[in-house]
Formats: sequence, structure tokens, C-alpha cells
Amino acid sequence: MTQSEVLQPATTPAASPVTLAVDCMGGDAGVACTLPACRSFLAQHSTARLVLVGNAQAQSALGDLAQHPRCSFVLASEVVTMDDGIEVALRRKKDSSMRVAITQVKDGHAMAAVSAGNTGALMAIARYVLKTLDGIDRPAIATQLPNATGGATTVLDLGANVDCSAEHLLQFALMGSALVVATTGPARPTVGLLNIGEEVIKGSEVIKHAGELLREAHEHGHLNFYGNVEGNDIFHGTTDIVVCDGFVGNVALKASEGLASMIAGFIKQEFSRNWLTKMAALVALPVLSAFKNRVDHRRYNGAALLGLKGLVFKSHGSADAYAFGHALDRAYDAAQHQLLAGVRAGIERAMAPKAEVDTLSAVPTPEPT
Amino acid sequence: MTQSEVLQPATTPAASPVTLAVDCMGGDAGVACTLPACRSFLAQHSTARLVLVGNAQAQSALGDLAQHPRCSFVLASEVVTMDDGIEVALRRKKDSSMRVAITQVKDGHAMAAVSAGNTGALMAIARYVLKTLDGIDRPAIATQLPNATGGATTVLDLGANVDCSAEHLLQFALMGSALVVATTGPARPTVGLLNIGEEVIKGSEVIKHAGELLREAHEHGHLNFYGNVEGNDIFHGTTDIVVCDGFVGNVALKASEGLASMIAGFIKQEFSRNWLTKMAALVALPVLSAFKNRVDHRRYNGAALLGLKGLVFKSHGSADAYAFGHALDRAYDAAQHQLLAGVRAGIERAMAPKAEVDTLSAVPTPEPT
Repeated sequence: MTQSEVLQPATTPAASPVTLAVDCMGGDAGVACTLPACRSFLAQHSTARLVLVGNAQAQSALGDLAQHPRCSFVLASEVVTMDDGIEVALRRKKDSSMRVAITQVKDGHAMAAVSAGNTGALMAIARYVLKTLDGIDRPAIATQLPNATGGATTVLDLGANVDCSAEHLLQFALMGSALVVATTGPARPTVGLLNIGEEVIKGSEVIKHAGELLREAHEHGHLNFYGNVEGNDIFHGTTDIVVCDGFVGNVALKASEGLASMIAGFIKQEFSRNWLTKMAALVALPVLSAFKNRVDHRRYNGAALLGLKGLVFKSHGSADAYAFGHALDRAYDAAQHQLLAGVRAGIERAMAPKAEVDTLSAVPTPEPT
Repeated sequence: MTQSEVLQPATTPAASPVTLAVDCMGGDAGVACTLPACRSFLAQHSTARLVLVGNAQAQSALGDLAQHPRCSFVLASEVVTMDDGIEVALRRKKDSSMRVAITQVKDGHAMAAVSAGNTGALMAIARYVLKTLDGIDRPAIATQLPNATGGATTVLDLGANVDCSAEHLLQFALMGSALVVATTGPARPTVGLLNIGEEVIKGSEVIKHAGELLREAHEHGHLNFYGNVEGNDIFHGTTDIVVCDGFVGNVALKASEGLASMIAGFIKQEFSRNWLTKMAALVALPVLSAFKNRVDHRRYNGAALLGLKGLVFKSHGSADAYAFGHALDRAYDAAQHQLLAGVRAGIERAMAPKAEVDTLSAVPTPEPT
């Protein structure tokens, strides 16, 4: 089997139409954001189906969606708020829209669940309801960030795991590769290991060991390892995927969000300083709009929770309908191209050689005759 | 003693004129960058003195600096290149301009050394020549990043230490506070602990323990601890100082550099797309220049190596004369306001209660009579 064949199967489209379960209550805007996004989604994807999950208020807000032939509604009595702790979300709100949406995936009524609700609660409920895949110790959160090549870099983990072993980082690399193959990407996406220098001697012991595991996996054709990358490579687009522990990934993501927001604020301030600069802004408006569109984070909305026995996508809590629509599209692509099978196959392949070795070593060596 | 008094002494200006030792050979441009920057520096600071260190080529390029009454030249036969490993820089190039400049500080001929040379070599030589301060386990690298308030956030560590204990993070907080007091800042700068959430229960065990130590130090008036901050807070300017381990700090810094460079590239591309957008660029030029000036990273050039028995400042390797001048200014401010005494005092105060407790516990408890 060639290396390019190894990663192919995951791109085969699903045979049956894609059904997504949507937590209509999640996020800052709730139904005001999710329902319009669902309406557009159904219009854009002519065979896709939606299972909308929400409370009575959501039900009464459905409008034309109540009669839509490819849309059904499931009532849930509770809502996980953005401030709810994991314990509250998991133990005290067993009939939350978030949990019921995920249960749709578990019960086979939907191929993926999408929620803009609180990340900690979503991950905890998803792990509890769906369980982790065989061979996966810890699920990870993966998102896309725009890069200078005009494409996007997939980064994981983004906060699910604060301390990671080298083996966890290898699993993230395998899962990230399956995600890129299934959603956007090239057949053999490149993986970079986030470090503080390109040389293999750089970084902590965990990172150095992870580098060894990734090189080994590359040699076996399980993934396409580029080597160490640094923080700036995320936005240069040096590799398709950047792998790191959840602490580092979360800080890098949020620092970037903070910087982008600061720069946007400065541009706005400078252009609204006086009537002269306001005139300049009018002249420059088409250019500024084109620029804004290029770095519009809403187009990259929709983080994947990977490593579970079911697909779950997380929208940013502050998403508007446009951004939430992108999260729905991401989940649709992933389900359509069988991301779950891709992740499972990637992990199984990578774990296989070790299992064979273990079996061989269990066979008693024949005595020399 | 009130809390505000605690941090005051470090701001007292030095009695004697400030002398800086400059490694003229460091950085991508070498003397073409450092010598013009030194010329401007001497013109701007009427009492400051410079000890320039370089090879014969540098000596012949001195021009009017050779006769300057507040400038002297020290010949060094070797140059540490940007690619030299730590071993080469430390063991095989004992007469490098970098090392000779640092030795000027050790021998009391200069109050701070400034180099644009390779960071790893600079830190290794500085540690070897100057040694670490009592009470400091590991030196740290601190830099400033612009924030949305129009000020700057001091971030440390930026790559000197890949694995840090809670005690190291406390030491970074104390050293960072002394740096801000001495260079730019308020008398009681606020310290944030970089984490993946604001709640005290967030983060790894090391981070949670560091939070406890920082709260304790705050209660004793040794520093002004704000609490946990997230990546975006660096650019929001939530606190004056953000403390993190060197791996996380390095990734956050480089990711930000990568994003800033991507955004600058996009703005340029959009404005040079066709003759219409080029006209818009002409009209918007003053606004774009004002914006560019606000986020100009050259103004934040000059990272401090903290925790050593002498002051060393690191300029970016790609610095031009303008940027290198800012690194010289930072070193001048630090020396002028006795940063070294400030760091030493901060560490001593914070370590003192523990020493007292230890002494007390060593005193035998009197027998009840």
C-alpha cells in the first residue's frame, strides 16, 4: 500500500444523506442566531437534514422550519448556560438541549451534533454520552486559523488537555490529519509539531519524545510529518496541521484573537480620527472590506471535538448566524466525508504495528535444534 | 512599610552617568546597524557613555565615534554568528565581541550590555560570565508588547526555560515587576498569571500552585497580583506584566509576530491589487502610516535578561538602527533607574519571610516550666 492510499478512504462521501443535530439554545444569541443559520443551511444543502433541539421557547420560534420536510424538532426542557460548571451541566441538567443533541448522535438519529454552548460542558457531556474511541486517551479540540497562503492551518489541541504526553500529541496528529482529509484538505496533509525552535534538540522532554513518535509514524506512512514548527508558522501556513498541548494551543489562539482585535481597533481609531481621515476611509472602503473579509474569523468558525465515538462541532459562543452557518457547514463536510471512520482508521493503522510486535513477542522462540 | 513604598527604591536614578557596553557585531546587519544607533544614542543622552566592542573591521568603521569624548572602543577578535551553537559560542569563541561586552559589565566598566546576537549564545555567556543572582534559579527573558490601552505589556519568560516550576514563575513575577518599575511603569505594576481561564481551578498543577504563591506574595505586599489572565489579555493590556513559562511565552510571541506579518501582508496586497486600490492607498497613506507607527514592533525592541548579577539587553537580530536604538534606550532606562538593585531587593524581600520562619523553627522551643 502506498502512503497516498493510506489516507484515501476517509474522503469517500457518505452513502445516506447527512443529518445534523443542532443545539438551538447554545451561544450568546441562542435561537436568534441558530434558527436563521439552520434555515440558510437547509436551503444550501438540498439533501441535508436537521434535528433541531431546544426548549418550548425555541419550538414557538421555529416559524417555517416547523413545516420543513427535512427538519424535525426535539424538545429539551433545560439549557446549559455559558456560566454553568461541568458538574451542573453533566449531573443536574440531564435534559439539556446540548445533551439531547449529542444523544441524537449516539442513538444514530444524527451524524454530527453542533452547539455554540460552553466548551467545558460540551466536551464533558460529549465524552460522557459518546465515550472516547478505542486507542484514544484524550479527545482534543481542533480549529482552523487563516494563514498567509490564503488557506487555513488546523491547530489542535486548543484547551481540552492541559498536560499532554508524547503519545497524546501523536494521537492529536493522527486525528488532525483525518480531519483535514475529511473537511478541506489535501490527501496527505503535513503535520508540524509546535516547538520553540526547528532543531530536533529543542523543547521539553515530552516534545522531543513526541518528535520521535511522529517521525516513526511518518516512516510507517501513518502521517506526513514535516518536523518542528514555531508559533509564526501557524500563520505562515508552513504545514496543514499544527499539533500542541491544550495549554499552549489555547494561549496561542487567544493571544492571536487579542492581537487581531487590537489591530482592528487601531485601524478603526486611525480612520475615524477627523473628517480628513474619515474621507480617506470612504475612499479606502472597498479595500478595507476586502481585507476584513480575508481575515473574518467567522469564516473559520466550527471547532471539531475529536477522538469521540461520534462527531461534535463547537461554534464560538459569540457567533452570529453567518458564523454559526460555517460551523454547520464544517460539521456537514465532516459527516459527508466520514470523518469518524477516518479518525478510527488512522488510529487503528498507527496502533497496528505495535500490536503485531506484541503478538510476535508473545510467541515462544523455537529452541535451536 | 506600606505596599507602595515596597516597590519604590528601584526608581531612584543612578548617581553616576550611565555607561553601556555594546556588542557592535551582533545581529543580521552588524556594524551597519549598531554604529549609527550608537551615534544617535550619544546625541540624545548628553551624559551617557558607551563602550563599543567589535573586531578590527568594526574599529575601522567607527568614523567620528573613534574621537567621541564619551565613547571608547574595545577590540575583540571573534564574532558569535547567528548559527553558532551554545557550545561553540561559550567554549570556542572566548574572545567574542558578545562575551567581551558582557565582561565589561562584570568588571564594572559598564552598567549594562546590549547585543543583537543569537539569543541562546547570549543567555549562555551572560549566565556563565555574570552568574545568577542569589535566590534566582533561572534567568528569564522579558519583552514588551504593545497593547490596546496604548501602553505596553511586559511578558516573561520568552524562551529561556521550557519547563518551569511554580517557584520559577513567582521569581519571574518579582523580576518583571522590578523591570516595569525601573523602565516604563507605574510604581505598583499589576501581574497576571497566563492561564487558559480566569478561574483559580484552571490550568495545570504547576500553574495552580504558582497562583497560590503569587497570591501569598501579594498578601505580603511583595507584588501586585491581579490573578489569572488569558492569551488575549496580553494585547488588551489587562495587566502590566504577564508571567508564563518560556515555552508558552515563546509560542505566544511568535504566533503574534506571524499574525501581525500576515495581516500586514494582506493590507499591502489589498491596496496594491489594481490602479483603483493604489489610488485609495495614496489617499489613505497618512492614516496607514499612523497605524503602522502604532504597531511598529521596532519601538518595543530590547528584551531584558533578568536574574543575573548584571544587566544584559537583547535586541532583535533583524533590528535596523532605529530598532537597535530602542534597545539601547531600554538598557539606559534600566541602568539609570537601578534595575539590578530593584530585582535584588524584590527577590530578597520575597524570600525573607521564609528565611525568618526557617530561623524560628530552628530555635528550640522552651520547655514549659
